[in-house]
Amino acid sequence: MSALDKLLRPRSVAVVGASADPAKTSGRPVAYLRKHGFQGSIYPVNPRASDIDGLRCYPDVRALPQAPDVAIVVLGAERTQDAVRELAAIGTGAAIVLASGYTEAGEEGARRQHELREAAGAMRILGPNTIGLVNLTDRITLSASGALELDALHAGPIGLVSQSGGILGALLSRAAARGIGLSKLISTSNEADLDLADFVDALADDPATRVIALYVESIRHPARFRAAARKALEAGKPVVAFKIGRSESGARAAASHTGALAGADAMYDALFEDAGVIRAQAFSDLLDIPAALAHERTLRGRRVAILTSTGGAGTLVADCLGLAGFELPPPDAATGAALRALQPGGHAVLDRNPIDVTLAGLQPDLLRGAIRIMLDSGGHDALVVVVGSSGVAQPELMAGALKDTLADAGKPVLAYISPHAPRVAEVLGRYGIPAFHTPEGVSAAMAAMWQVQGRAQPSRAQAPRAPLPVAAAVEESGSLDEAQAKALFARHGIPGVREIVVRTGEEAAQAAARLGPRVVLKLLSREITHKSDVGGVAVGVAREDVPARLRQMADDVQRHAGSRPQAFLVQEMVTGAAELIVGLHRDPLGSAILLGMGGVVAELVRDTTLLMLPADGGGLTPEQVLAGLRRLKTWPLLDGYRGRERADVPALVEAVVAFSRMAAALEDRLAEAEINPLFVRPLGQGVCAADGVAVLRERSK
Amino acid sequence: MSALDKLLRPRSVAVVGASADPAKTSGRPVAYLRKHGFQGSIYPVNPRASDIDGLRCYPDVRALPQAPDVAIVVLGAERTQDAVRELAAIGTGAAIVLASGYTEAGEEGARRQHELREAAGAMRILGPNTIGLVNLTDRITLSASGALELDALHAGPIGLVSQSGGILGALLSRAAARGIGLSKLISTSNEADLDLADFVDALADDPATRVIALYVESIRHPARFRAAARKALEAGKPVVAFKIGRSESGARAAASHTGALAGADAMYDALFEDAGVIRAQAFSDLLDIPAALAHERTLRGRRVAILTSTGGAGTLVADCLGLAGFELPPPDAATGAALRALQPGGHAVLDRNPIDVTLAGLQPDLLRGAIRIMLDSGGHDALVVVVGSSGVAQPELMAGALKDTLADAGKPVLAYISPHAPRVAEVLGRYGIPAFHTPEGVSAAMAAMWQVQGRAQPSRAQAPRAPLPVAAAVEESGSLDEAQAKALFARHGIPGVREIVVRTGEEAAQAAARLGPRVVLKLLSREITHKSDVGGVAVGVAREDVPARLRQMADDVQRHAGSRPQAFLVQEMVTGAAELIVGLHRDPLGSAILLGMGGVVAELVRDTTLLMLPADGGGLTPEQVLAGLRRLKTWPLLDGYRGRERADVPALVEAVVAFSRMAAALEDRLAEAEINPLFVRPLGQGVCAADGVAVLRERSK
Repeated sequence: MSALDKLLRPRSVAVVGASADPAKTSGRPVAYLRKHGFQGSIYPVNPRASDIDGLRCYPDVRALPQAPDVAIVVLGAERTQDAVRELAAIGTGAAIVLASGYTEAGEEGARRQHELREAAGAMRILGPNTIGLVNLTDRITLSASGALELDALHAGPIGLVSQSGGILGALLSRAAARGIGLSKLISTSNEADLDLADFVDALADDPATRVIALYVESIRHPARFRAAARKALEAGKPVVAFKIGRSESGARAAASHTGALAGADAMYDALFEDAGVIRAQAFSDLLDIPAALAHERTLRGRRVAILTSTGGAGTLVADCLGLAGFELPPPDAATGAALRALQPGGHAVLDRNPIDVTLAGLQPDLLRGAIRIMLDSGGHDALVVVVGSSGVAQPELMAGALKDTLADAGKPVLAYISPHAPRVAEVLGRYGIPAFHTPEGVSAAMAAMWQVQGRAQPSRAQAPRAPLPVAAAVEESGSLDEAQAKALFARHGIPGVREIVVRTGEEAAQAAARLGPRVVLKLLSREITHKSDVGGVAVGVAREDVPARLRQMADDVQRHAGSRPQAFLVQEMVTGAAELIVGLHRDPLGSAILLGMGGVVAELVRDTTLLMLPADGGGLTPEQVLAGLRRLKTWPLLDGYRGRERADVPALVEAVVAFSRMAAALEDRLAEAEINPLFVRPLGQGVCAADGVAVLRERSK
Repeated sequence: MSALDKLLRPRSVAVVGASADPAKTSGRPVAYLRKHGFQGSIYPVNPRASDIDGLRCYPDVRALPQAPDVAIVVLGAERTQDAVRELAAIGTGAAIVLASGYTEAGEEGARRQHELREAAGAMRILGPNTIGLVNLTDRITLSASGALELDALHAGPIGLVSQSGGILGALLSRAAARGIGLSKLISTSNEADLDLADFVDALADDPATRVIALYVESIRHPARFRAAARKALEAGKPVVAFKIGRSESGARAAASHTGALAGADAMYDALFEDAGVIRAQAFSDLLDIPAALAHERTLRGRRVAILTSTGGAGTLVADCLGLAGFELPPPDAATGAALRALQPGGHAVLDRNPIDVTLAGLQPDLLRGAIRIMLDSGGHDALVVVVGSSGVAQPELMAGALKDTLADAGKPVLAYISPHAPRVAEVLGRYGIPAFHTPEGVSAAMAAMWQVQGRAQPSRAQAPRAPLPVAAAVEESGSLDEAQAKALFARHGIPGVREIVVRTGEEAAQAAARLGPRVVLKLLSREITHKSDVGGVAVGVAREDVPARLRQMADDVQRHAGSRPQAFLVQEMVTGAAELIVGLHRDPLGSAILLGMGGVVAELVRDTTLLMLPADGGGLTPEQVLAGLRRLKTWPLLDGYRGRERADVPALVEAVVAFSRMAAALEDRLAEAEINPLFVRPLGQGVCAADGVAVLRERSK
């Protein structure tokens, strides 16, 4: 039995620092263990008590009759260290450390946390600063959360891991009120040892868990997190995450646009996408979405029927579903006839969707009949039943009608509760029918089911990987100038525009003569990366004007940047091409390729997507790049929008794959890289990099 | 006393079709009137009963002892007509018609609704298909809503008008559970007579109403709605609207992009903006935002302090506020010291925001002290108090501490309730402290307060209107070709690019010789408006290639459109200018000017805004246009972004104002008009229309 197994399903629990007063935080763990029916051994440890509520109390850790599977340490931070050392010494499986005053409290705390980790040795630690862990499946409460005051635990299929202790209590009480059953509830908090990834991995193996919900503040070990999430996915268990820190600025001092566009939160989007994690957008979705996914009925299409006993609320739900991209076709003729047969002479309008069964709301047999008809109908892929005021007066009646019909249901059935009717929500929840208080919750849950279905379909066949390009040839370091950067990209398979480096107006005129009637003239510098900010870019310069324009540019740059530029680039003018941005973003969460609408508007329009590079090295696949491009709002511009020529998407995909393989091959030596714009010409005419940024780190000795 | 006053505050109520069985819908109105304490006269009308619950019952309307202020008609649609006619004949103030089977039920129903309106004559009608009206201020329930089963009505400052009856019941029960007090609750439904605008107008005059909340399906009389909303605003009463129908397609068959960009929902945004109405984005915001606005404390800045007894939830609320653009500065030194003095030796971290007062959560005196300190601090403009698990155990204690400190509060105080704790929400609500269950609700409410504050500040000084241009000169009709459209715009003050109409390759070559080394060549046609879709646009054609390119274009167009074009436009090439779209959108809600990023990407990027034209004629003011431009994501492109030259914004504003005045002057004769792109050159160099669409209706005889 691994230490993590022991932590999740202990047979013996020591509570170090247990108080006999259940009103105190230190008195709660023992009280809750007994209240909720823990069947194993409980060892309170407290030198100043002989027993606690009839349980024998031990003066210190060494006096325990056996090494416990788990110890809950409820001492202050000062005394926790010694207790942890002693627990490790006797062979305790894992310690749950509740004390605060660690990394969350500054430098001093961080030092203390380091010492705690050392004191634990091989023993696993949950916390510190955690509120603990609750195994609802087996009714084992290893926690001091006041939320455990509730009378009974409602066990169910949702495993919940929170990096915040306070939120864990909130979710426990909110789930209980909704009749949403949980399997395990874990607060990881400071994660001195065990972290989010460990518990995602453990819940992927837990037979009682069907859906994993995460409250995320920061992912400390992205590679392990990704592996654990993929394991869960492969086990058929969707992972849903709500992530805070969304408002943190992602702007960093960088030579490229990529840094500003790939903000901290966008990187989490990319990581979640890559790991197959569904991101919850609103806090309430963190319960709403798992509740809907837990019943495991597959959503096979986007056609939703709404059955309502209160017209207005049905329309409201329909509107939210429509916004989320679902269709609400009316019942087909046979279904409409069957519904009418149920309710002869009624005023109800049955040939529309929402299907208004006003009278049925008060007649469970009618309601049952209508639900059965809609479950049998081939015209809809899911059913939303709107519970009106009858649900307040007779919650069991309404919920019962729904429950009776569910056994045969081959499609998802969700309930929306229109009035304030907490009792009917709870009863529906207990019957395994996801019940929602907000129409937005219904559409978020439906969208998540659709996402799960979409992921389940195409088997992610892994193409054999081509070997990465050899990076040894790259000898430069530091911030490259534009010509050097594009030369580097060209060596890795990405063509650049035709261009000539010049130093004088005369050389520039000669270059222009070879490049066309109009050219682009640019400052060339390793120091100045934002050339246009200092007047260092001129587009469409006529051949004859080139020398004069070069002198003017030199003056402008000198005025803005303080020194006279020594070199310039003369480039061919490219017109009629789409402009994209392709960038590399290195981040604590991993490396990602940014892809999107380029040019000077890139940072304003922000039509970009981020694709994570594989953590184990290697570049992107063509399929990944194409999927990323298709997510762009401006994708139609590449795809023959409004009579435009189709752009050379195959060449674009090839260039982005090459860029990603360059990033993988150069590893951390390539700190920044960006092409903006990458011109994409009409089909068959290829792509070319019109500007480039690259920052190389010194080769480590 | 007006009929509307009688409807809102009747002294006598007849219930036509009243049943003696309170379980029936027709039995409810009398039962509810008595249950909730109506002090006036109740006249049940039912030929088959002599009394109902001790009240004398009248056989028919003519037998009533007086003309009632209000009659509730609970008969079926067939018998309603006669009853309404009789009620009108005896001088009843207003009738509330509950029957369904009118416009919502198709053509037959629409005819019936027309007859109902005729039968009512001068008597006002609420409904049909309404659930009625509740005056909570005076405890007068004119409704059959099952939501009135609740024991007591909680009167308060929010007036609520819903176009859906079912939603009205839902909001009533949800508000009651939250302790949110309502003044009047009105379901307008089919609006055969009285509509949303009538009740906004009435609530603007109602002393018991401080905030007006609207559940909107469709605004039938936009001009009256706008007038009523502005009246409320001038009375200092914010209007908050939640609007469904957001998922309806706004796409229409139109000659311009404007129709696709100005979707039905975007027009509501423009109308609400123009009328000063705050739009609620989530359904729950429709109670959350008014609850926050009702306490009338002004938010004077964007700095919010969060006081929390549970760390995680404080961070969650902070994140949502940060996303909404609020700042969360830490307490200043003096405030920090005062907080520390409250709680000596505590582990709480007081120099950050959220301010974690973990222990104070259980000690009301400490909590009271901390709240007082934060209310006195000059460093924050609003306070959010997070209620943790202590709020579950001791709701009164927590709510009491908050209430005690509020009397002196000069800034908004909101509560976020982290666990499931319905009782504390209700108590806080009754104390007038807006209490939220979702962190997104907190930020939506704070944003609404900020919006209200922003609107209150600049007095909308009305500049005297210049006379509109004379429209008599416009003699064309139908869909104009590009050259005609731009000539029309030029006559109204909007310059176009230099261009020459040609018919042959030879003429085109001559024209190109006058317009530059490269030109734009375009198909000229009144029939084909989407020229690029048929190959009818060529950009950057070299002078010498013009005749050949013209022949190719003629071939392409013939292939796509089936007929050979007879005329072409040769235009100067404009480079280095920003491209905008300016369009006119005629809509049932009013006329609006669309403004945004133009060019071929306009419909993809959708960076546009809609500005309503004044309903009483006249164009936009320069201030309105500039404010609209500043809302664009791509505004920086015009404003000297990244070293670019500033664009000629004054000329742009002048052109848009001219366009709007043209639209106003031509009135409905100008059905469609669009400039895309409008080139905006660098400052001092003006703007020019590069393409134009105009559709003119025949002058009406």
